[in-house]
Amino acid sequence: MLSDIEIARKAKLKKITEIAKDINIKEDYVHQCGNYIAKISHHYLRELKDKKDGKLILVTAINPTPAGEGKTTTSIGLSMAINKLGKKSIVTLREPSLGPVMGVKGGAAGGGYSQVLPMEDINLHFTGDIHAVTTAHNLVSAVIDAHIKYGNDLDIDETRVFWKRAMDMNDRALRQIVIALGGHANGNPREDGFIITAASEIMAVLCLAEDIPDLKRRLQNIVVARTRKGKPVTIGDLKIEGALAAVLKNAIDPNLVQTIENTPAFIHGGPFANIAHGTNSLIATKMALKLTDYVVTESGFGADLGAEKFLDFVSPTAGFKPDVIVLVATVRALKYNGGTKDFEQENMEALRNGIENLRVHIENLRKFGIPVVVALNRFSTDTDKELEFVIKFVENLGVKIALNEAFAKGSEGALDLAKKVLEESEKESELKPIYNWHDPLEVKIMKLAKEIYRASHVDYEMAARNKIKFFKKYGYDHLPVIVAKTQYSISDDPKKLGAPSNYNFTIRDFELSAGAGFIVALAGEIMRMPGLPKVSNAVNLDVDADGNITGLF
Amino acid sequence: MLSDIEIARKAKLKKITEIAKDINIKEDYVHQCGNYIAKISHHYLRELKDKKDGKLILVTAINPTPAGEGKTTTSIGLSMAINKLGKKSIVTLREPSLGPVMGVKGGAAGGGYSQVLPMEDINLHFTGDIHAVTTAHNLVSAVIDAHIKYGNDLDIDETRVFWKRAMDMNDRALRQIVIALGGHANGNPREDGFIITAASEIMAVLCLAEDIPDLKRRLQNIVVARTRKGKPVTIGDLKIEGALAAVLKNAIDPNLVQTIENTPAFIHGGPFANIAHGTNSLIATKMALKLTDYVVTESGFGADLGAEKFLDFVSPTAGFKPDVIVLVATVRALKYNGGTKDFEQENMEALRNGIENLRVHIENLRKFGIPVVVALNRFSTDTDKELEFVIKFVENLGVKIALNEAFAKGSEGALDLAKKVLEESEKESELKPIYNWHDPLEVKIMKLAKEIYRASHVDYEMAARNKIKFFKKYGYDHLPVIVAKTQYSISDDPKKLGAPSNYNFTIRDFELSAGAGFIVALAGEIMRMPGLPKVSNAVNLDVDADGNITGLF
Repeated sequence: MLSDIEIARKAKLKKITEIAKDINIKEDYVHQCGNYIAKISHHYLRELKDKKDGKLILVTAINPTPAGEGKTTTSIGLSMAINKLGKKSIVTLREPSLGPVMGVKGGAAGGGYSQVLPMEDINLHFTGDIHAVTTAHNLVSAVIDAHIKYGNDLDIDETRVFWKRAMDMNDRALRQIVIALGGHANGNPREDGFIITAASEIMAVLCLAEDIPDLKRRLQNIVVARTRKGKPVTIGDLKIEGALAAVLKNAIDPNLVQTIENTPAFIHGGPFANIAHGTNSLIATKMALKLTDYVVTESGFGADLGAEKFLDFVSPTAGFKPDVIVLVATVRALKYNGGTKDFEQENMEALRNGIENLRVHIENLRKFGIPVVVALNRFSTDTDKELEFVIKFVENLGVKIALNEAFAKGSEGALDLAKKVLEESEKESELKPIYNWHDPLEVKIMKLAKEIYRASHVDYEMAARNKIKFFKKYGYDHLPVIVAKTQYSISDDPKKLGAPSNYNFTIRDFELSAGAGFIVALAGEIMRMPGLPKVSNAVNLDVDADGNITGLF
Repeated sequence: MLSDIEIARKAKLKKITEIAKDINIKEDYVHQCGNYIAKISHHYLRELKDKKDGKLILVTAINPTPAGEGKTTTSIGLSMAINKLGKKSIVTLREPSLGPVMGVKGGAAGGGYSQVLPMEDINLHFTGDIHAVTTAHNLVSAVIDAHIKYGNDLDIDETRVFWKRAMDMNDRALRQIVIALGGHANGNPREDGFIITAASEIMAVLCLAEDIPDLKRRLQNIVVARTRKGKPVTIGDLKIEGALAAVLKNAIDPNLVQTIENTPAFIHGGPFANIAHGTNSLIATKMALKLTDYVVTESGFGADLGAEKFLDFVSPTAGFKPDVIVLVATVRALKYNGGTKDFEQENMEALRNGIENLRVHIENLRKFGIPVVVALNRFSTDTDKELEFVIKFVENLGVKIALNEAFAKGSEGALDLAKKVLEESEKESELKPIYNWHDPLEVKIMKLAKEIYRASHVDYEMAARNKIKFFKKYGYDHLPVIVAKTQYSISDDPKKLGAPSNYNFTIRDFELSAGAGFIVALAGEIMRMPGLPKVSNAVNLDVDADGNITGLF
């Protein structure tokens, strides 16, 4: 099979103005970025206000292998297949960070015959949204340190500035640093660090904001530090929410591109699925819902992370709900959950053990009251016996399942999946969140721990207990909870594969994302600044005299 | 008078596709970024290769007051006035950094009735070129620290990594930092710092490159560190010039916008005029020369910095030369050079003393063999007697001078200047550089010190003497010299106003920009990372619900 970029280069793209016209976006709202990318003004949503929403299809996955199971290619392939069936569909996705492109991970614009294009641009800079977030983020830091240097009127405690600096780069050397050395002219030395931009609360805020006033309100509420007396210091106290919103003025508009089969795709915003909610911007999804019959969107990591957040936090915030959930599974991830890392050999025992992971995710998703369809992504190493076993298992649970070969075959490989998804989408459903936002913080966490993570008990470490007091004192405990934990297990321990239960779930600490509107419960170490490997992908990346890029995958 | 942004908002812009069509740029090469900005593929230069160049007009200035004398408004106004006279003209300018927009300086897209538009976009992100340079720059740093962590095969001396990190922000707390703290996983601790992106050698390289292969060659040659044995370590040694060029793939294409009077403007690249050559990209100027009759371009700081570099380094590198030089002077800058800071009162004595600064710059520029026209930028506090005095003084030197009111009146205010510039541009001239690139390094510096800075002697501090040995050992001493010194005096001392002479010029140290192709001679402290003031402009900046920005000036 050809490489992603070879396949991409063979595709015949339509002009983006045509794509926009096909879905009836008025020309005035189309801000062209070259021939194949456009920003669509978010103001267009005001005009579409009274239009009926299309159906929403959420794509999620079981706990994956470290290589990933093809959730994005499934989302793209499914949307292309729905179009192939004569219905209208738009796929909405997160935009990839540039940092990881230089690391091991490579690009993130789908793959094989299920890609969004132009993949080189999407993976490198795209329309500059992430750079805008970086700039806004670092402006906050520069203002904090200037404030401290010039008298510190807000009485900011230099040892409790939670707001780190940000960069869209895999740069481990910036994780932990000491800044403002060199004496008086350079300010007051303190400990600091950089996070990757996707982990910035500004990224989360941008993806949740309804419009510019809502963006400013959320930015204003972000807590960056505490005073020496312990009081929260917000961006509103620094009076720069207007400047930040000005810096983000274009970044708030969704980006329109196309799939390899010329169907429309919105790619907008990229928050993490552990310390944030992990899905593309609400504005993009809302706009897509107004413009088409079926919107396929995706949430980050497994169903215990991204989908749970989508259902308990994103949907209530946005005022929409999915009509169907597609749960991506693979034979190899099930075998991995069953205890093997050898995916080349048929291994029914590992599969039988690992399939418990799929069962748990199906059970979990059913609790939310939304119909589920399993997409079984086919790999060349899967045997018929293995595939047959999974299909039977799922059908016995009363759930529809379809083989998916969108990676290798594009829409043709996802037609069966598309048909089953369309059928299920006709069912009436009502979203039943796992917890109520008004539950006490510990109750919200206990409900998640029991219902989703299958723990019997929640332990709080000292730091976490202190934060709970802080949240209660300053009125933040009504916020919903975003659990940050490993993606490799439904539990808080990446080594507990399959379907762990009856264990203690440990909350190490909390963080406050008051602008985004949630409390992050930290269950495990969360990496917020990746590093480059010994030989990074930067060594492979190249561009020729005509501007053709190679080494992107 | 209205504020810049109010004036900007009243302007009626043409679609950028129309502007491009007016100057005969083929549609295929126009990459639209919204309705009013376009990137023009640099590949178009290949097609234009055999077309005759237009005339080149270089705008420079005397030593300024800290508030600046309006060089950019003069360039814009002059180009608009040439168009008004029925000739075709394009202005080419540097793109503003975003960092200073948040500081005291504000934007940098001209002002009053001589602006380039859309000024909000030009001042904030624009087409992302500077973000691309930041990304490329920091990729080099991340790769250096990953290389050191994973065995350091190149034997990089951690105490001699010259390559700092970069950010487009005024952030003094990042000037001097310690990185990679926190133990093994985060790498090897060392001292580091951030410079503002405009000061990155990658910015200089981008602005000098002819095309992508030349860009890669220059990137490859950049020296980032020395080995423990003292040998230079280059980006070529790290094998990432291809990745950097891929990151800069779009940034190499010039940006086309328009002036407030709908005449075309290229705004592309923004290197400093102290540690770099201080003018917009060669690609933009070369393309403009092929597309129009008169190109107005500008060099940074005063004629002793930007213009000298343009004539001794940029022109020989590019293979073009100016046909006329416009020297911007103001009554208040002359009075400032004459020892007063009170510009409100008529002060003939200060003016008589200060005008020596103008005399020196005229003499200096005449040495290069190119005709000079003085633009006397009028301010409301200037008295007729003062203006008359300056005009007589210049005319007595046999040099043409015109009053310029482009800031307040647009092209109408620069018509007389335009006429005189067009007349002078008809004269045959030959560029005579001050030094020969093949002169020994100390000879090059001595020639500059005597002919331009009017010093009698050059002192070298220890660090500088050691670097000369290093350059000779590794074959870098044939490179031309870029002197980094104060912009407020023709000397190396900002307090020596007017026309200092017979003093010792001191070279403190050297830096190597082997990719850009020059040696930087440091004569004084050069600030490479500005800071925010106590109350930054970020507090004024805002955007309303409809996306209109306020607080930009």
